[in-house]
Amino acid sequence: MRILIAVEYNGKDFYGWQIQPGLRTVQGVLTESLSSLLRCPIVLHGSGRTDAGVHALNQVAHFDYAGNFPVEKLPLAVNTALPSDVKVKSASVVSDDFNAQFSAKRKTYAYNFYLSKIPRPLIDGFCTQIPYSEEKFDFDAAEKTVRSLIGKHNFLAFSSVGRPVLDPVREIYSASLEKNGGVITITLTGNGFLYNMVRIVAGSIVEIGLGLLPENAVEKAFVSLDRKSLGATLPPHGLTLISVEYDND
Amino acid sequence: MRILIAVEYNGKDFYGWQIQPGLRTVQGVLTESLSSLLRCPIVLHGSGRTDAGVHALNQVAHFDYAGNFPVEKLPLAVNTALPSDVKVKSASVVSDDFNAQFSAKRKTYAYNFYLSKIPRPLIDGFCTQIPYSEEKFDFDAAEKTVRSLIGKHNFLAFSSVGRPVLDPVREIYSASLEKNGGVITITLTGNGFLYNMVRIVAGSIVEIGLGLLPENAVEKAFVSLDRKSLGATLPPHGLTLISVEYDND
Repeated sequence: MRILIAVEYNGKDFYGWQIQPGLRTVQGVLTESLSSLLRCPIVLHGSGRTDAGVHALNQVAHFDYAGNFPVEKLPLAVNTALPSDVKVKSASVVSDDFNAQFSAKRKTYAYNFYLSKIPRPLIDGFCTQIPYSEEKFDFDAAEKTVRSLIGKHNFLAFSSVGRPVLDPVREIYSASLEKNGGVITITLTGNGFLYNMVRIVAGSIVEIGLGLLPENAVEKAFVSLDRKSLGATLPPHGLTLISVEYDND
Repeated sequence: MRILIAVEYNGKDFYGWQIQPGLRTVQGVLTESLSSLLRCPIVLHGSGRTDAGVHALNQVAHFDYAGNFPVEKLPLAVNTALPSDVKVKSASVVSDDFNAQFSAKRKTYAYNFYLSKIPRPLIDGFCTQIPYSEEKFDFDAAEKTVRSLIGKHNFLAFSSVGRPVLDPVREIYSASLEKNGGVITITLTGNGFLYNMVRIVAGSIVEIGLGLLPENAVEKAFVSLDRKSLGATLPPHGLTLISVEYDND
């Protein structure tokens, strides 16, 4: 029996999703609690990795299980054993050919930042401080650039250097920039994302908004494929994996 | 010279506002950093205390200072010395008869909670989990009760037992209940609040919404003045002091 789970976590105290010996990771903590609850070693397959410090509102993973623990009772049961920064939101039986990674059709990420020389203790856990005054930020230019990400593009320039990429073409289905009480959020939905892609998009949008990069920097990077023509990779704590969608959604 | 400061803090790791020997408090941390920056012992007067765990978006305090450090440079300078969970947002010179506590005309508090049997790692720092399903909550009944708080009432039943109150009458100027992505927020603006008043209001609203208290419980408590006729005192981490207003605002 193949079981799909949806997971929410605060990435602050995790060394990312992927199991690593001696480090506290989301996959590691979940594997341990699920194996202990179900009294058999389970192997958890995530929809993809998230880096150290990155949050998830709805990460998705699957595992195979041959026992008779009732699936509908799994979330409440495993949550009593899980620490407060990771919880299982739902569990359901899926077909044997479902794969949390390879069946995924769309993912949505959000990157949050705010412009202020004063750090903001109430939102710093989930937003990146950009130490410029808000008036210096050209929201319209930034929004226009965010919208220009929509479509199929070669995102090689938006991936961390030194990482080979077999096929750097990704399709972005929707892209938006919103401002809410001082917090600016970039939301991207696409068929996939390269390593560090959203954090480099965010850094480039911020620098375009501040006039530190030309307004056509993104457009040119799709052609030049040059990482150096874009903005900085913003820190992980501003990034949240919002959802992973499958065809049956 | 009297200086007013606005302060934002995450209450999680503080034993509240008020200085206490041997404990980490907001007033203590601020007093130490300001005294060190200004090279003289300062005495900080807050608009009022907040309890251990309670957050503030805009707490206000004043202190007297006879030196020549430029006030406009104070926030950035003191923030470099302050820890990440408390920051000074602004500083300005006020008249000598201004008093952060006694000149305050209005305060606004917000209480955040969500209804779910599954804890929510991404919002648990600022919202209280009510472990019931959302469908069990009668939002309209709760909202009606929140609105009934508006006006001048004897709030004695809404204060922690064992604390004597000279004048338990407070006026609530505005009161609202809003729902945003699963988070329900009670926002109250009034001329003052008794000890634990907002947390008891929140507990009563939650219990009325869940049908655990009769819909007229608040109305009756204004007359009976009986703490036991109301809901539980909800935990501090759901509470945020949003603003303190003065007549010149």
